[in-house]
Formats: sequence, C-alpha cells, structure tokens
Amino acid sequence: MRGLPSHAMKASIPPATVARLPVYLRSLLSLPSDRATCSSEELAQIAGVQSAQVRKDLSLVGLRGIRGVGYDIAGLRHQLTTLLGLDREYRVVIVGAGNLGRALAAFEGFAEWGFNIVALFDADPAKVGKRVSGLPVAAMGELETIVADNDASIGIIATPPRAAQEVADRLTAAGVRSILNFAPTVLKVHDVEVRRVDLSSELQILAHHLQG
Amino acid sequence: MRGLPSHAMKASIPPATVARLPVYLRSLLSLPSDRATCSSEELAQIAGVQSAQVRKDLSLVGLRGIRGVGYDIAGLRHQLTTLLGLDREYRVVIVGAGNLGRALAAFEGFAEWGFNIVALFDADPAKVGKRVSGLPVAAMGELETIVADNDASIGIIATPPRAAQEVADRLTAAGVRSILNFAPTVLKVHDVEVRRVDLSSELQILAHHLQG
Repeated sequence: MRGLPSHAMKASIPPATVARLPVYLRSLLSLPSDRATCSSEELAQIAGVQSAQVRKDLSLVGLRGIRGVGYDIAGLRHQLTTLLGLDREYRVVIVGAGNLGRALAAFEGFAEWGFNIVALFDADPAKVGKRVSGLPVAAMGELETIVADNDASIGIIATPPRAAQEVADRLTAAGVRSILNFAPTVLKVHDVEVRRVDLSSELQILAHHLQG
Repeated sequence: MRGLPSHAMKASIPPATVARLPVYLRSLLSLPSDRATCSSEELAQIAGVQSAQVRKDLSLVGLRGIRGVGYDIAGLRHQLTTLLGLDREYRVVIVGAGNLGRALAAFEGFAEWGFNIVALFDADPAKVGKRVSGLPVAAMGELETIVADNDASIGIIATPPRAAQEVADRLTAAGVRSILNFAPTVLKVHDVEVRRVDLSSELQILAHHLQG
C-alpha cells in the first residue's frame, strides 16, 4: 500500500468520501485481529457499499491496495486514523442538558475516539450544579471562560431551536471551530464547520419511503 | 403553483432531494403566518441552500412557483406534507432504553410530526416495567406481539452495536418497514428502508475538518 503525505491527502476530498471514511475505519476494526490484509470486496461488504466505491474513495485519499493481495489492514487503519484526525484528542462542550444533552454526555462512543466532553451547559438555574455523567452542569454565563480555559474545539448544540443561533454565535466567538447541531434549525455561521443531526427529518425521510 | 398527482411525484425522486424536503417544509413553517407567498431566494436563504437548488428540488417533485410571485406558501406546505407522508400518523417502537433510547422517547419533535412512540423495549430485566416518558419499558420477548398489535411501521434501534442486527431481523420479521439505526453498525436487511444516525462518525467528520 502506498500513501501520500497527510497534507496532500487533505486537499479537497469530496464530502461524501470524507463521510464514508469513518465507516471504512469501523469496518476494518471489526475484522479479526489476526488478519493482515483484506480485499476491497470484503471491506465493501462490511461497510455496506460497492467495492468500486471503496477503491475510488481510498484512492481519492491516496490509499491503494496491492493487486491480488488487497489492503494492509494495520497500515490502512493507521492512515485512516491520521486522515480523520483521530490520532489526537478533542475537547468538546455540550450546550443543553435536557434529555438529549444528557444522553450525549453519557454516550461512550465519543470518548472511545478521543472526543472528551469537558463541560455541559444549561440555561435553567435548576439544572446548574447537578452532575450528569460525572460533569457538573455549568451556567450559560460561564460558556466563554470554560471554552477558552479548556481550549475546546467542538461544540454540540442540544438546545431548543430558538436558542441555537445565539449559542452558535457564542461558541464561535469563544473559539470553537466545529459545531454538531441537534437543534432543528439552520445555523448561520462563518469559518466554522457545522454538521446537523436532525432527528425529525430522518423520520420524515423514512415516512416518505413508507408511502411507496 | 402546479402540482403533479402524488403517485407521479413519488416516482424515483433523488435521495438528496428527498433529504432536503423536510428542510424546506421546516423553513416554510418559520415564515410569519400572515405571509401568502415566498420566493425561491427567500426559501433558499432560510434553508441554507442555493436558490437554484430549491427550484430544481421542488421542480423534481412537480412543484413550481409563479414567475414574479414565487410559491404559494399554504399550497407548498400542503404538498410537501403530503409528499413526505406527514398527513397521517406513524407508530414507532424504540429498542434500547439506555440514555439514548430514553432521550428519543422524550423527544417532542417526533409527536409534532405524527410519529407516535408506542413502545420502548430493553433486554435488561431491571429496566422492564419502569416508566420512561409515560411508557412502560417492555421486555424483548414482547417485541413481535407489540409491533403487530400496534401495527408499528417504524423501528428505532438504540441498542449496543452487537445487538443491532438481531433486533433489525426481529423488527423486520414483525412487520416494521423502516428502521432508524443509532447503533454504529451496518445492518443487512431486505425490503426495509434504513437510515443510520452515527454520532461518532459525525464527530469524526468534524475532526477531519479541524485539521485543515
């Protein structure tokens, strides 16, 4: 397997390819630990995509298998981990300590990949100071200080929709560079990467298919 | 505004267009209630997409504005609601009553759109019988009976990854036709529509962008 240097890989990878890289990484991790290589067909089957898509995606990020042998599993894992930036830790704050915010704070899948939840905020004084998954809920007034002190780079918004834009503005001003937005609203931001998880929309898309 | 009959609209709409329809519908609902029409530019701005994309998407589902006037808001809302199948109710079951399952059961955004959570299941006997958002947690042994009795068409999987495939198989056999999967695993299913929400992947994609 050959690989390009990281800065070259990073250049303008199509978003759909980036979105599939975590799936490939997870698929590799599900292979038995005594295996050394795997074919694109096998990887494709575990990932639930076409094998031509696997080869194209990995080729786009500079990763190629060896004909007749496939991909070196350890090498591919290492390269995907580096490419996704999972070789270091990220400090994450969650705004909104309702059911969703609490579920996110308790979600073990985050810490596993180096995403450390360092604070949880809520606007409700009755929630402030209560412990959620070992973290005391902080007041909204402390947001800027806590984000800066912890050098948090990712903010998760789990507030009601009407509060989301102001929270996004404050997170951005405080130095957060990426936002995962669970509020059903479109955020207006500059120089910040936003991913939206819209639970109602997911069900609406399923409802559309149910009509068939 | 002209509209094609529903069966014609349904024919092979590109998935990316279907995925944006809930965003357009939500955007329309955010307009002041005394407004009668809106332009594609205005809708695009609220939805956070390009106006040419709005016109193309709506045209693909048979909806066109009137030149110089724009879209009739009430008509467009009605058509999008029908197209997404939101003019009727869906019965939904959640499998997994951990933090995430409980957050989903409490999520008010579902009921608002006609998605009624009728049951919540868990494999842990200590959780069975406890009430979560007004619903008693049911045992996994009751899954088939409860799905059938309630004619549930959507199943939400909020279990650990190792349990997800078996749960998907049982939901499918019991008559569920759409699955929203929160477990970080690729499900193998037939004749069932699956949407996956992968929280760790969302953060991994943000991490990739943070390296820039």
